[in-house]
Amino acid sequence: MTRSLRRSRDVPALVEQARTGDPRAVARLITLVESGDELLPEVAAALAPHAGTAQVVGLTGSPGVGKSTTTNELVRALRAAGHRVGVLAVDPSSPFTGGAILGDRVRMQDHATDPGVYIRSMSSRGHLGGLAAATPQAVRVLEGAGCDVVLVETVGVGQAEVEIASLADTTLVLLAPGMGDAIQAVKAGILEIADIFVVNKADRDGADNTVRDIQGMIALGERGPGEWRPQVVRSVASRAEGIVDIAAAIDKHRRWLVDHGELRRRREARAAAEVEAIVLGVLRERMASLRDGTALGTLAAKVADGSMDPYAASRELLAAIG
Amino acid sequence: MTRSLRRSRDVPALVEQARTGDPRAVARLITLVESGDELLPEVAAALAPHAGTAQVVGLTGSPGVGKSTTTNELVRALRAAGHRVGVLAVDPSSPFTGGAILGDRVRMQDHATDPGVYIRSMSSRGHLGGLAAATPQAVRVLEGAGCDVVLVETVGVGQAEVEIASLADTTLVLLAPGMGDAIQAVKAGILEIADIFVVNKADRDGADNTVRDIQGMIALGERGPGEWRPQVVRSVASRAEGIVDIAAAIDKHRRWLVDHGELRRRREARAAAEVEAIVLGVLRERMASLRDGTALGTLAAKVADGSMDPYAASRELLAAIG
Repeated sequence: MTRSLRRSRDVPALVEQARTGDPRAVARLITLVESGDELLPEVAAALAPHAGTAQVVGLTGSPGVGKSTTTNELVRALRAAGHRVGVLAVDPSSPFTGGAILGDRVRMQDHATDPGVYIRSMSSRGHLGGLAAATPQAVRVLEGAGCDVVLVETVGVGQAEVEIASLADTTLVLLAPGMGDAIQAVKAGILEIADIFVVNKADRDGADNTVRDIQGMIALGERGPGEWRPQVVRSVASRAEGIVDIAAAIDKHRRWLVDHGELRRRREARAAAEVEAIVLGVLRERMASLRDGTALGTLAAKVADGSMDPYAASRELLAAIG
Repeated sequence: MTRSLRRSRDVPALVEQARTGDPRAVARLITLVESGDELLPEVAAALAPHAGTAQVVGLTGSPGVGKSTTTNELVRALRAAGHRVGVLAVDPSSPFTGGAILGDRVRMQDHATDPGVYIRSMSSRGHLGGLAAATPQAVRVLEGAGCDVVLVETVGVGQAEVEIASLADTTLVLLAPGMGDAIQAVKAGILEIADIFVVNKADRDGADNTVRDIQGMIALGERGPGEWRPQVVRSVASRAEGIVDIAAAIDKHRRWLVDHGELRRRREARAAAEVEAIVLGVLRERMASLRDGTALGTLAAKVADGSMDPYAASRELLAAIG
């Protein structure tokens, strides 16, 4: 798809086409971003002036809690309210295969013919800095294309998800009854990242317990007087129940962010994570590719056989790259 | 606990004590490693000659599949076979609280009075390079103390777990019936890291389906003629059933690693990840702390307001630190 985009003077034209809402231009830009094309810095430069115009909503949770169904219904609700919506479905947890699992994305085809919705699955194949760098760029593409809400859906919970959640203005954590108790949720580190808990499949046995457990954890959590208290919302996304409540909670959090100066703070933190990811990606390449005998592989062999300790190895490597 | 260890000339003495199997010395060294104490490089240097003597077994899986119970029974089986055993229970998924959840560690007290077993929960508080750097150092402490098997148990699945699994010679992925289907397992990226799948709680409904799904995925997976084909083992850890089969599968994989030269390759990869994590930790600190106006925070503010793009910011930062 990017084959026809060979020269950097094509970049501003492509960004201009995306600005007019051309879905093919949007798709090509996201492909550029995702694949870590060499034109990426120019794409980033062309998109920078449009940064910060969309509300970014993260949506995460363990496999099987109903993320795709919930996203699908949220998109419907946001469209009904007149928003232009972008959806990035991110699979950060399969570092080896380099391909997003499409599977339940199929349901998203509900919105396939709606020109006010862009839906895109993303993987981290080849991107310097991984999804932590690629995702915010993809958000900027969608902002540039006029989306005023961007939903970022990630599979599972874990460090990568925490990183991607930190890209959002508002983070929803989905749970379902019987998927593990509140202690497990704390273990998975999701309490700290959730602005809104959604107990989906709330028609199932155990929903009351799940809600009570989460509320108990929220009550126990330490927060200062000016800090946001996570909301708990119930839904049955498969029957479109509770979606209005989720949307209302997102709006409420958005207002809180603006009123407390938190929006700016979060976005600066997001930009810092993005810049850091790019820098670390470049430095990783340098570490791997040095040719003077201090490259990572050579030092690693010495650490593995016990002839050097890892701190001594890191000092040599740092001296060589920095 | 480390308060009394103020001078670097105490380090060799402490390592010597740990070598004799003194559990308090072992505990103090792991605390040093975990907290990222400034003496850590010296500890690493003193431990380096003892590297590579233990078999490192990783054990991961979603919350609720029975990791602690399985670990507990595996320890019992390994002790019966005459091994000295170390257990590191790692919680990588809560980057904010900086404390491992102890909860079900309590069950491990079965082995609390056994001098041939060291059990330790680890968190990533304060460690430069995080658990990816701290865990292999803790493994080295346990190797130094004469453990010939070290079990590294991690909560959940995700990038951090994948990283920690890459520290192991042999990685066990635990599943349980009804915890999500095979597609979800692929989504979580665990297929790629598993040397052995353990379907725990195999007395429950759906166990046959889970085993069949995993075997189907393994059959579909591409692997060369010399590559390991993941094994599938059933267990009911709460009744100590199937533990012998897990131990046999670990032994089989160990032999395969040695016969195919894979043990050395994996350990070099492990050392590379460790050195890289230390280097990236140091570089992260440098990025954050530069005082000439190019520090990460300053650049991030420009990226957030759209006056600079993240690639331009990363170039400035790289020029300043490298």
